[in-house]
Amino acid sequence: MDETAWIRRYIAPLVTATGADELRDDVALLTALGPTIVTMDTLVEGVHFLPTDPISTVGQKLVRVNVSDIHAKAAEPLEALLSIAWPKGRPEEAFSALLSGIARDLAEFSVSLIGGDLVQHSGPLTLTLTMTGRCIGKSPIRRSGGRIGDVLYVNGEIGWGHLGLEAARTGGNEQIAERYRVPRISPSFSAQTVADLASASMDVSDGLLIDALRLAEASKCGARIDLDRVPLARPDEDVANILAQCTGGDDYRVLISAGPNLEIPGFTAIGTLTESPGLVLRHRGRQINAPSTLGFEH
Amino acid sequence: MDETAWIRRYIAPLVTATGADELRDDVALLTALGPTIVTMDTLVEGVHFLPTDPISTVGQKLVRVNVSDIHAKAAEPLEALLSIAWPKGRPEEAFSALLSGIARDLAEFSVSLIGGDLVQHSGPLTLTLTMTGRCIGKSPIRRSGGRIGDVLYVNGEIGWGHLGLEAARTGGNEQIAERYRVPRISPSFSAQTVADLASASMDVSDGLLIDALRLAEASKCGARIDLDRVPLARPDEDVANILAQCTGGDDYRVLISAGPNLEIPGFTAIGTLTESPGLVLRHRGRQINAPSTLGFEH
Repeated sequence: MDETAWIRRYIAPLVTATGADELRDDVALLTALGPTIVTMDTLVEGVHFLPTDPISTVGQKLVRVNVSDIHAKAAEPLEALLSIAWPKGRPEEAFSALLSGIARDLAEFSVSLIGGDLVQHSGPLTLTLTMTGRCIGKSPIRRSGGRIGDVLYVNGEIGWGHLGLEAARTGGNEQIAERYRVPRISPSFSAQTVADLASASMDVSDGLLIDALRLAEASKCGARIDLDRVPLARPDEDVANILAQCTGGDDYRVLISAGPNLEIPGFTAIGTLTESPGLVLRHRGRQINAPSTLGFEH
Repeated sequence: MDETAWIRRYIAPLVTATGADELRDDVALLTALGPTIVTMDTLVEGVHFLPTDPISTVGQKLVRVNVSDIHAKAAEPLEALLSIAWPKGRPEEAFSALLSGIARDLAEFSVSLIGGDLVQHSGPLTLTLTMTGRCIGKSPIRRSGGRIGDVLYVNGEIGWGHLGLEAARTGGNEQIAERYRVPRISPSFSAQTVADLASASMDVSDGLLIDALRLAEASKCGARIDLDRVPLARPDEDVANILAQCTGGDDYRVLISAGPNLEIPGFTAIGTLTESPGLVLRHRGRQINAPSTLGFEH
């Protein structure tokens, strides 16, 4: 791998923001449009994606997991820095495909690439993206603003991450596997809605149950989830199957707390923040024992 | 490795900026103090540092390579996000030592840690730091602002990276090896000086000769370097030994172009930007053939 040539060939063409100075420099000037947040996510081959995943989808996922964090905080994605630790000897075609996936989704979500680093090594493909976002309000909506009595709402369906990973691992349905590889995130997601309504907000990345409990704990509350109200990727009456979808992770949905009885476009009410700490699960009005694993712990 | 526990134990205590919300969230709010630049550097074990380097020095180096980029752009380091891909099974003591090195130098250079990611994997230790800096002026000093006739000045000595790597590799003098592991960067480096005087600026990280040529090319000039004026780590009259120190990389000095005949504290004049493109080397007034490798190409 000729790092300079590969940067010029595949990465520099993605760069348009003037603050990036066409990657001719060691730093980029951040665009200042008001309060700016920043997040950083690392994906490692064999840990966060499968070696068999088409590599362009890995690039898409890298962008999307960061966009998801930005959206959930009531902000719009803005700029990104990309670090790639590339396995020595892997062909240039694979690098080109990776960057095509990254380019596609940076464009999809209107994110400008402004810098980064490229190194080669003897380990697994390791990708780190740092992404900034412009807050709609004066500051991001945190996990910690929830109040007792607030209702929990989630946008979109829960469980595609779980079902898709299973399909990808076992060579099952390709369309379902794709939902794991390239989580669906709407480019027209309304950060404004989150800014206007949410008392607390976060993205569901490790599993609905564990993330709902995290939001509740950050807000010094407990949470009650009505499993029969969760919009599932594969609707089911069997509690074990419901729990599998609610603990599977990789959904990249937005979970917010807000006042009761709101009609929020795209969102479904699934539970409540409670005074007593911890997580209570109900199904058709009956209390259900929480599973020993609520999600992906890390 | 229990990622949550290790973050709480070793990383969260480093976090003080209010925008980081004690790492309880997925994003940090950037501190806005005016024009802000950002850089990102990745260090991989076996590529950018030796497996035998004391791991706390690796943490220091990670901070310093980024500070060096910020300083060179006439800015003061401000905030950082840290991603660690940690080799599975390596003991917690090593992680603790790594973080102690990072903490020490974040404090040394007044940088606030505001976020990041921690994953474990089967590859070599891979560290990525994203660092922001506050510009002294309205924008960073670029590589590209040099003018024909400007003089090239470098701060501090050149060659410690080369000599130190040799010492570290061969079990030589420990104090010299330390100069490779923990490049000397002054916390009181005057970004103001660069902002006031430099037409172009960059840090010398890949070797003085290649970086001087890069600055010249970005400025659409050539460069002439007077090797006998370069302040060497180990002064020498043998041209081969001089060239080894000027092409070795890992020096993390600041190279600027500015008007002639300036007395700039800490800086030494070593050459000139020229009209004819390319690099010309002189020693005691005689022209010297440029070596085939001008530095670390990547």
